[in-house]
Amino acid sequence: MTDPQAEQPAAGGLTRRRLLFGGAVAGLGAAAAIGADAVLARPRADDAVAEPLNGSLTVPFYGAHQAGVTVAPQAHTTLIALDLHPDTDRDAIRRMLRVLTDDAARLTQGVAALADSEPELAVVPARLTVTVGFGAELVSRAAGTEARPAWLGALPAFGIDRLEDAWSGGDLLLQVAADDAFTVAHAVRMLLKDTRSFAAVRWTQTGFRRAYGSENNGTTMRNLFGQVDGTVNPAPSDDDFGDLVWCREGWLAGGTSVVVRRIHMDLDKWDRLDRGGREQSVGRYLSNGAPLTGTAEHDEPDFEATTAIGFPVIPEFSHVRRSRSENTAERIYRRGYNYDDAPTGGGISNSGLLFVSHQADVTRQFVPIQKRLDELDLLNEWTVPIGSAVFALPPGCAEGGYIGDTLL
Amino acid sequence: MTDPQAEQPAAGGLTRRRLLFGGAVAGLGAAAAIGADAVLARPRADDAVAEPLNGSLTVPFYGAHQAGVTVAPQAHTTLIALDLHPDTDRDAIRRMLRVLTDDAARLTQGVAALADSEPELAVVPARLTVTVGFGAELVSRAAGTEARPAWLGALPAFGIDRLEDAWSGGDLLLQVAADDAFTVAHAVRMLLKDTRSFAAVRWTQTGFRRAYGSENNGTTMRNLFGQVDGTVNPAPSDDDFGDLVWCREGWLAGGTSVVVRRIHMDLDKWDRLDRGGREQSVGRYLSNGAPLTGTAEHDEPDFEATTAIGFPVIPEFSHVRRSRSENTAERIYRRGYNYDDAPTGGGISNSGLLFVSHQADVTRQFVPIQKRLDELDLLNEWTVPIGSAVFALPPGCAEGGYIGDTLL
Ligand code: HEM
Ligand code: HEM
Repeated sequence: MTDPQAEQPAAGGLTRRRLLFGGAVAGLGAAAAIGADAVLARPRADDAVAEPLNGSLTVPFYGAHQAGVTVAPQAHTTLIALDLHPDTDRDAIRRMLRVLTDDAARLTQGVAALADSEPELAVVPARLTVTVGFGAELVSRAAGTEARPAWLGALPAFGIDRLEDAWSGGDLLLQVAADDAFTVAHAVRMLLKDTRSFAAVRWTQTGFRRAYGSENNGTTMRNLFGQVDGTVNPAPSDDDFGDLVWCREGWLAGGTSVVVRRIHMDLDKWDRLDRGGREQSVGRYLSNGAPLTGTAEHDEPDFEATTAIGFPVIPEFSHVRRSRSENTAERIYRRGYNYDDAPTGGGISNSGLLFVSHQADVTRQFVPIQKRLDELDLLNEWTVPIGSAVFALPPGCAEGGYIGDTLL
Repeated sequence: MTDPQAEQPAAGGLTRRRLLFGGAVAGLGAAAAIGADAVLARPRADDAVAEPLNGSLTVPFYGAHQAGVTVAPQAHTTLIALDLHPDTDRDAIRRMLRVLTDDAARLTQGVAALADSEPELAVVPARLTVTVGFGAELVSRAAGTEARPAWLGALPAFGIDRLEDAWSGGDLLLQVAADDAFTVAHAVRMLLKDTRSFAAVRWTQTGFRRAYGSENNGTTMRNLFGQVDGTVNPAPSDDDFGDLVWCREGWLAGGTSVVVRRIHMDLDKWDRLDRGGREQSVGRYLSNGAPLTGTAEHDEPDFEATTAIGFPVIPEFSHVRRSRSENTAERIYRRGYNYDDAPTGGGISNSGLLFVSHQADVTRQFVPIQKRLDELDLLNEWTVPIGSAVFALPPGCAEGGYIGDTLL
C-alpha cells in the first residue's frame, strides 16, 4: 500500500497530522498482513506526544472482506440508506463506487478525501470504517436482475412488524462507524457530498455502544433494557465463521448480507416488569448475563433443566430459547447498536436497538430465526420492529480496485 | 462525602462495579478538596484491570458551583428543556429538585439512582455531570417574581434570528454530559423518569465534541465548518474568571447563567466559499486557528495591522473582530457543542453549533456581543440562530442540601 499522504500534499491539516502520527500510515500494509484489526499509529521519537491517542487508531481498508463487518464494534455508527436517482445507470454506479472507495480508503486512514473542503476534520480516524451495501435495485441496474441473490429484497412479512417507510428499504447502504462521533459526522458528510449526484438520502439511523476505553476490551455490550446483549455470537476467529458469514459464489464471494432492523424498545413498559420477569423473558440473569441455569455469562444454557415442580428453568417462551436453532448452520452474526433519539409526543424516551446481523444467506439463516421469534418470544411484549432493510455487502477490494468491482 | 455505595447495597450491578473500581469512591473527598476536576478511580491491587478505564473517571458532585460549568467539556452532551405541569407548585418543585439532586449525586459517581430499574447501566460514570437550570417561570413559582434576575427570560429579538419553538424556551433545564453516549442515555432516562410527574419535555438537543482520548488534552475543538473554535475564552484558572462567570448576590451567589442558542450552519454554502474567504470571514487561519496577523493559535490578533493597500488584515466584518469587546468585563465563557442530526427534505446535512455560554449577567455580557454580531458579522452569511433559551444555574450544593436550596 502506498502512502496516501503522498498523494495529498497540499491540505493544511496534514502538517498537524504528520506531527502527531508521523510515518505511521506506511506501516499499515504489514499490520494488515498479520490480520490485526486496528493498527496503532506510532508517534515518531521526536514527537511531543506522550501517549498513543485513541483517535490515531486505524483499521486497514483494503482486503478480502469489507473491514467494517468484523472489526470490534466502534462506539458510534451511522447507517444511511440512499435511493438511486432515476438516471443513475451502470456507468454512473461505477463512477459513484470508485469515488466512494477512494474517499473511504483515505478517510479510514486519517487522510482527507480528494474533494474534502474541511481536510482538518479528517485527521482523527478513530478506527473509522466505511461499509458499502447494495439493494436489489442497484444490483439490477449494475448487472441485471439475474445478478440478484434470491434473498436480496424485503423480508417476508412478520406478524410483529409495524414497519415505517422512514426506516425501511433503500438501494445503497453506507455504514460509517468510528470511536469518535465527530469523525463519523465528517466522513458521512464527505461521502454524501460525493454521492448526491447519484442518489438521495432515504433514511439515516444513528447508534452507539460504550465509548472506546470506557470498559475493558471484550466486555459484552448491554442494551437499553440493561441486558447483556451479544453473548452467544459467532466470533471472527471461530472455525466456522467463514461458512456462516461469507458468501462463496459469484460476484458476492467474500461478501456477505446485512439485515438492518430498527426495533423500538418500550422502556416504560419494561420498567414496570420486575427483575424476575425480565430474566424469564430472556432466559438470562440481568446482573451478568449468565443463563438461568448457570452462574457465568458464557456458561452453556441447559434447556433440559427443570424446576422442582417440573417447569423448564429457561422458559419455552424465552428469547434465548426461541432464537437458538437446532441446526448450527442456521446462525447469524449480530452486531447491533443502541439508539436513543429525542422523545416525541409527551414521552420521555424514544429508544431501541439497531439490530444489525450478517449471514451468508438471509433466507437460510436469518428468516427461520425471525419466524420463530414472530411466533413466540416473550420479549415481543416490549419490542416492536419499526424498520427493516436487507443489503448485499460486496467483498473488500484490492488497491486499484473498488468496492463493487466484482459486480460491474 | 460518605460512600454512596454503602447506601445502595442491593443492586446487582455493584458487584461488578466493586470488582472494577474497588474502593475508589471513598477517595473522592480528598480529590475534590485539591480541586481536581476529574478523579481517576484506582483499581485495587487485586483487580484484574491492567489500565485505568476512561469510563471510571468521575467528577465530584458536591461543591460551591455546579460541576458541569467548568469541567473540561465531555465528548457528549444532551440538553433537555422541560415545562412545569400547571400544578407543580413551590412544594412540588422542592420535592423534584431533591430527587434530581439525589439522582445526580449518585449517577455522577457511577452509582445507581435510588429508583433505578437498570442499575447495571450506572456503573460507567465517564466524567458524567448533571447541570440544573431554572427558567423564569420556575423561579416565580418557587419564590415569586421578585426572585427573578432581570436577565432571566427571552433574549431581545435579533434581526438574524429565525427562532423555532421546537428549540426555544423552557422552565427547567437539565444538561447531562459524559464521555460515553450510553452513560448520557441512561442518566437522561433516569432523570426524566423522576421528573415526569412534575414537568414535560419541551425540547431535547444533543451535541458532541471529539471522543475522550482521541486528541491531546487541551486541543481546541473544531466545529463543523472546520474552524478552531474556542481559542479566546476565559479559563477557570484565570484571575477574573469568577467575576465573569459567577453571580455574587442573593440566591444565585455561586451560580451563573446559561444562554443556549441552536445555530444552524449551512455546510453546503460554506463549501462553496474558498479558503481565503473562509479565513477572512472569521479573521483566523483554518489550518491552526492563528489570527490572520499571526502564526500560532494563541497569538494576540493585531486589529491595527493593515495590508499594503491599507485595508485591515483582520477585516472589520470578521467574526473575531465583531465579537471582541473593548470592555474586558463584557466577556462570556463559551462551551459549545456540534450537532449533526439526520438530514431532512432532500438535504445531506442538518448540522450546526449548540452554542452554550455562561456569564454572570446575560444583559451586561452576552447581549452586547450578540447585538454587534447581529449588526455585522460576515459569518451570518452561513449561520442562522434557530433556537434560543436562557436559564439561571443555581450554585452547587453541599451534601444534605439540594440544587436550588438557596432559592426555596
Ligand atoms: C430489541 C430486540 C432484541 C433484544 C432486546 C434482544 C436481546 C437479546 C439478548 C439479551 C440475548 C441474550 C444474550 C446474547 O446471547 O446475546 C439475545 C440473544 C439472541 N438474540 Fe436477540 N434481541 C432482540 C432481537 C433479536 C432479533 C430480531 C433476532 C433475530 C431475528 C435475535 C436473535 C438472537 C440470537 C440468535 C441470540 C442468541 C441465542 C442463543 O443463545 O443461541 N434477537 N438477544
Ligand atoms: C455558528 C455560529 C458561530 C461560529 C461558527 C463561531 C465561530 C467562532 C470562531 C471560529 C471563533 C474564533 C476562535 C475562538 O476564539 O474561539 C470565534 C470567536 C468568538 N465567538 Fe463565535 N461563533 C459563532 C457564534 C457566536 C455567537 C452567537 C457568539 C456570541 C453572541 C460568539 C462569540 C464569540 C466570541 C466572544 C469569540 C472570541 C472573540 C475574541 O477573540 O475575543 N460566537 N467564534
